[in-house]
Order: sequence, then C-alpha cells, then structure tokens
Amino acid sequence: MTAICNKDHFYMQQAIDLAKLGRFTTTPNPNVGCVIVKDDQIIGKGYHQKAGEPHAEVHALKMAGDEAIGATAYVTLEPCSHFGRTPPCADALIKAGIIRVVIAMQDPNPNVAGNGIKRLKEAGIDVTIGVLTEQAEAINKGFLKRMRTGLPYVQLKLAVSLDGKIAMASGESKWITSNKAREDVQQFRAQASCILSTRATVQADNASLTVRYYQLPDEIKKIYLPEKIRQPIRVILDSQDQLIGTENIFNQPGETWIVRKKDSLIAKQNTKLIIESSSCKQINLSKLFALLAEKQINSVWVEAGAHLAGALIEQDLVDELIIYYAPKLLGHNALDMCILPNLQKLSLAPQFEFESIAMVGDDLRVILKRKSLATL
Amino acid sequence: MTAICNKDHFYMQQAIDLAKLGRFTTTPNPNVGCVIVKDDQIIGKGYHQKAGEPHAEVHALKMAGDEAIGATAYVTLEPCSHFGRTPPCADALIKAGIIRVVIAMQDPNPNVAGNGIKRLKEAGIDVTIGVLTEQAEAINKGFLKRMRTGLPYVQLKLAVSLDGKIAMASGESKWITSNKAREDVQQFRAQASCILSTRATVQADNASLTVRYYQLPDEIKKIYLPEKIRQPIRVILDSQDQLIGTENIFNQPGETWIVRKKDSLIAKQNTKLIIESSSCKQINLSKLFALLAEKQINSVWVEAGAHLAGALIEQDLVDELIIYYAPKLLGHNALDMCILPNLQKLSLAPQFEFESIAMVGDDLRVILKRKSLATL
Repeated sequence: MTAICNKDHFYMQQAIDLAKLGRFTTTPNPNVGCVIVKDDQIIGKGYHQKAGEPHAEVHALKMAGDEAIGATAYVTLEPCSHFGRTPPCADALIKAGIIRVVIAMQDPNPNVAGNGIKRLKEAGIDVTIGVLTEQAEAINKGFLKRMRTGLPYVQLKLAVSLDGKIAMASGESKWITSNKAREDVQQFRAQASCILSTRATVQADNASLTVRYYQLPDEIKKIYLPEKIRQPIRVILDSQDQLIGTENIFNQPGETWIVRKKDSLIAKQNTKLIIESSSCKQINLSKLFALLAEKQINSVWVEAGAHLAGALIEQDLVDELIIYYAPKLLGHNALDMCILPNLQKLSLAPQFEFESIAMVGDDLRVILKRKSLATL
Repeated sequence: MTAICNKDHFYMQQAIDLAKLGRFTTTPNPNVGCVIVKDDQIIGKGYHQKAGEPHAEVHALKMAGDEAIGATAYVTLEPCSHFGRTPPCADALIKAGIIRVVIAMQDPNPNVAGNGIKRLKEAGIDVTIGVLTEQAEAINKGFLKRMRTGLPYVQLKLAVSLDGKIAMASGESKWITSNKAREDVQQFRAQASCILSTRATVQADNASLTVRYYQLPDEIKKIYLPEKIRQPIRVILDSQDQLIGTENIFNQPGETWIVRKKDSLIAKQNTKLIIESSSCKQINLSKLFALLAEKQINSVWVEAGAHLAGALIEQDLVDELIIYYAPKLLGHNALDMCILPNLQKLSLAPQFEFESIAMVGDDLRVILKRKSLATL
C-alpha cells in the first residue's frame, strides 16, 4: 500500500467538493465524488447526481477515457461492489486500468462494507483508505447514520429571540428572525430527505413546507436550475386525526405523508397515510424514525413547535440543533422553544456541543451536535 | 495641517494598545496612550495608569527627554488643557518642543472639549485629528458616555442555557455555564467602575461580587500583579430595606453602596448608603444612574436576576448585552432570563445588534449593542 501523501489530500478535497454538488438530489443515495489523476493532471472527474443515474466513478472514467490506464482514482466513499440500479463501480475501475484507488472511507452499506475494497485489492490494485475521512463523513451524515443504525439523521431547527422564545403570548411569531435567516432555512430543507412537522404547525401557519427556489441563497441559484431542486417529502404528525385534507400542505409539489391513528383521511394522489394504530395517544417517534429509515429516508429536518421539539429532545432523538437567534428580547410571557416536562435537575439537562457559528443577515445561526452520552 | 498617512495609523495603533493597558485602573479617568516618534523611531511611550498619576503624554515625554524637540506625538484622546490633579498636557507637549500632534479624537470632557487642540494650534503645532477614532471610542465607552450624556455605560451580563433560562424551577443554577465562562466574567468585572446587583441576588447566592485575581484569565495575570487589579464598587439595590448587614457582600475588599429607601442599616466602614426616599416602591433606575455618573462612575456591570434585567431593558437603560450561552436545554419550567411584563407586540420587542461572537470554553459568548431608536 502506498503511503498517504499531501497530493492525496489535495485530490481528495477536489473529490469531496464534487460530491457536495449532489447534496440536493442524491437521497436516498450518498453523495460521492471522484477524481482521476495521471501524471499530476486531473483527467477525469464526476459526482453522483441522482439515484438510478451513474455513480461518480462512472462519470469520471467516462471523462478520462483510455487515459485511465495507469491512473489513480480518488473516491470519497468505497466503490460499490454490487449490482444495484447500476453495475458495480469497483469492476468499472478495474476494467478501465486504474492502478491505484484512494478512498476516504469504507461504505457501511451492508451491500458493500469492504467488498468493494476487497475486489479492488484482489485485482491487484493499490488501495489506500482513510484520506480526509472526517470531511467525507460530514457530507453523508444522513446516509451513514441510516446504514449504521437503521435510523435517520435528525436536525431540529429553531428560530428564536435571544431569550429563546418562538412567539409572543398571543401566538404572534411573524417574524422573529430576518428574511435572510428564512432563506437560509430553505437550503437546509432542500438537502433533507424529509421535513417533519405537526398538524398544529401546519394548521396554525397554513404552512406549505416546500423548498421555494426563489428564496434559496444566490450562490445556490447560480449553480442549480429550478428543476435540479427536489421537494423533500413532508411528514406530518397528526396524532389526533385532525387534518381535514384541505390544508395548504396537500396542494404542494412533492409527497406528503400523514402519520395518524385512523385511516380516515381522503388521501390525494401525492399523499400517503402512515397509520400507527397503537393505543398510545402520542405517535411513537422512535418507531416512526425506524420506519422512515426503512423507507430510505436518510435525514429528517424538523420544523415544528415546542412540544415536538421537547419530545424529540427528551427521547434523545435529535442529532443536531440549528438555532437562529434574532437580536431581540421577547420577555417571560412569550412562548418557550422547548417543552421538557420531566426535567427537574440541572445535571440531567440535555447537553450539546457548538459545532458551527455564523451570522446570517442580522441573526446568529448556531449548529450544535448532541453530546454523546459516552462523553458526558 | 499634514494629511493623514499610513504611518499615522501604525503609530496610533501602538498608542491605542498602550491605552488599553490602563483599562483596569484609570476609572474615573479615560484610558489614554501616547507614542512619540522622531525619524521613524518611537522615542517615547506611555499610558495613563491611575487617576491622580501622570497622564500618558507625561510618561511618553519623560522617556523621550530632549529628543522630543521636533518630534511627533500620537495621542488617543485630545491632550488636556486644564489644571486638574496634574498640569495640562497640551502645555507639556508645547514646552517639550513637539512640532506635530496626531489625535484620535476630541475629548468631550467639558474641561477640555477642543481647548487642548486650540492651545496646541495657537502654539504653532501642526495638529491632525481623527486617526483610528472608532478604536479610540471603543476603549473609553464608559468615560465618553458619561461626558456626553451624564449617564454611565451599562453592560448587562446574562449566563443562560440555549433556551434562555437562568435557573431550574427549583432555583438551582450552579452552574449553567462553564468555569471558563465564569473566569471570563471576572475580567469584565475588573474593568467596570461598579457592579450593580440586587438584594435578592446577594442573599440568594450570598455573593461577594468581587474580582477574584486567581480566576482572571492567564493572559491578564501575566501582565498585572494582584495589587494592580482594583475592586469595583458594589452597588446593591435594596428597595425593600431587607439587607441586614451580615451578608458576605459587606465583608469584602472595596466599597459597597446600598441603595434603599430608609437609612436604617448600620453601615460598616466601607459601606455607603444611598437613600432614595421617594414614595415609589421601586428604585428609580435612571435617577440612580445619573447619580452614579455624578459620582464619577463611568460604567456599570450588571449581574442580577430577571427582574432587574427586564426593568433595565424596558426602560432602555442597557447599552450592551453580554450573554453566555451554555450548550444545554433547560425546558419551559426553568426560569426566564428577562421579565418584560409590558411587552405585547413583536414589533415593540427591544432590538439589539450582534457586535462580537466568541467561544469561551464550551460556551458561546455574544455581545450585543442596543439598536439605537434612530436606526430602528
């Protein structure tokens, strides 16, 4: 095995940047980028764009053509070894005459899980694993969590005042955060496999919970045409069976999945019902997430009220908090962002870690990761 | 008048860095730094350390000696023109043979207010005004506000969870933020003219509200010996006349001022009473601040509960919020950071602007400035 060198980092970074280009479209597949290098020249590059379409390696090999003989391929995720909707990429690399493959990380997908690497090695290819692994992990948080745990990656978004309030006592909440912050939310929505919300939020705001192309940040609109932006599935919790089917949410592009207790809603064409007929009053959230993962949902973007936020936090189902702080104070009468009825002791408070901090217009956006119980 | 050149910025920056060295000791005087330059060499430098002791210019001129003849002086604040506890610096500069003086900003002190500049010009000195004015303003926010408005600069400190809570419902609050955050607070205390708190906070925590040298950040301890750190005056609101005189706060180094309605507390040697005998139940905060300014208090560092925080916000008496966010959630039952009983409409919410954002250990520290009504 050839030792990792600086050049490997350089080219893998290119591959990662390519992989990111697919972040709005690849779900349920992972984002993957590939760069093919010969004599210090990039002779091929590609990224995976959409499930069912060619993988990153195929695009890159096509560009390289016969030049691929004797070249090195940089791939952000282990090349696949199985026949899915497309033939195995490991075979394609072997056939093209690649002599070295540098891989950021092994694919935890049980259909691959080292088999791609094995196949390359058996073909006599020099394989290097573990270049920029952390970055490669970061671009596929949803896919990787689903493969490893059978659960989607859950991001909880909150838009609050400095004192953590989501609305005035009257319910008035339009708008606490700025236009810029709401535009920023659009790009997170656009990357999620689904948006999770509740009947209450859907009815109170008559929300559509879609990705609005015109509201996406300019730097994204510059690269992506409207047809390249996917509508995430809207998953709406309706534990009291109160949605009537005429709400805004039912007249939007893309699918809406309604999670309820009874099969009593006349579902429109793009609406599916998920019936949870247990005797429990609430929807069982961890069971729901397992079901969503089974349905190939990699990531869940949550936009809802303080009750769902609190329930998710309390059941330790949140991987990431995204909080927008508007620079204003709403005072003690305003509505809290997170209902935690069972928390009594400070030492038991759910803990997070700041991961990223950025100004978004006049507001502050912080992203936090759940502090794993092992490190508490 | 000589035009401002890059060198002027360079030397003024040195003078500002010098001025900052006095930030723990100069109150009620401003922080001032001075650099004397001849033939592109710094031949003198100094900063004001303590009221009653020599001004920055005097230190710098002393170091320069006879070399000052024909040199340029950089001063962060207009040299004084009046006999205070020390003779006027404008005269000293003239006498020393300085031929050019570069001044970051005019001194709003009515005893100076352009007279220093006038005197220098009358002596035939080339005077340049307005170099790095913004930085020069920033190092004397308290002094400048007091001179301009007759009120001190008010900083409200809050240590909260992500959802803006300062304690559990039980009152448990030790500790929401980390050790590092509490150490960070010490350096703000050390720079303030006074610390404002309430009877409730003093009794609940049996707080001492002193600057603890050993808790100051290492980079400060490296420069300052313990005797160079001043104890800010502790100003305690006791509108119900409930302090009994045996609390911790009375047995600390430095002065304690108790603001109450009745003159019924047996004051210890380092305790003063401020009696506000109006019929109103609450202490009149803006009257109190005007009084503090009269007593040469430049800046007020507020550490108290949600009631005082809310009252100060509601009366628009806060210049700066310093909020430490600990990465945890305490939920809706926990105690709010800011009581605003009269706020009903979102459009009337007090607005701020993010000015600085920094990680302090595992916590996030944000500093916000009150958004002036003119710009709303």
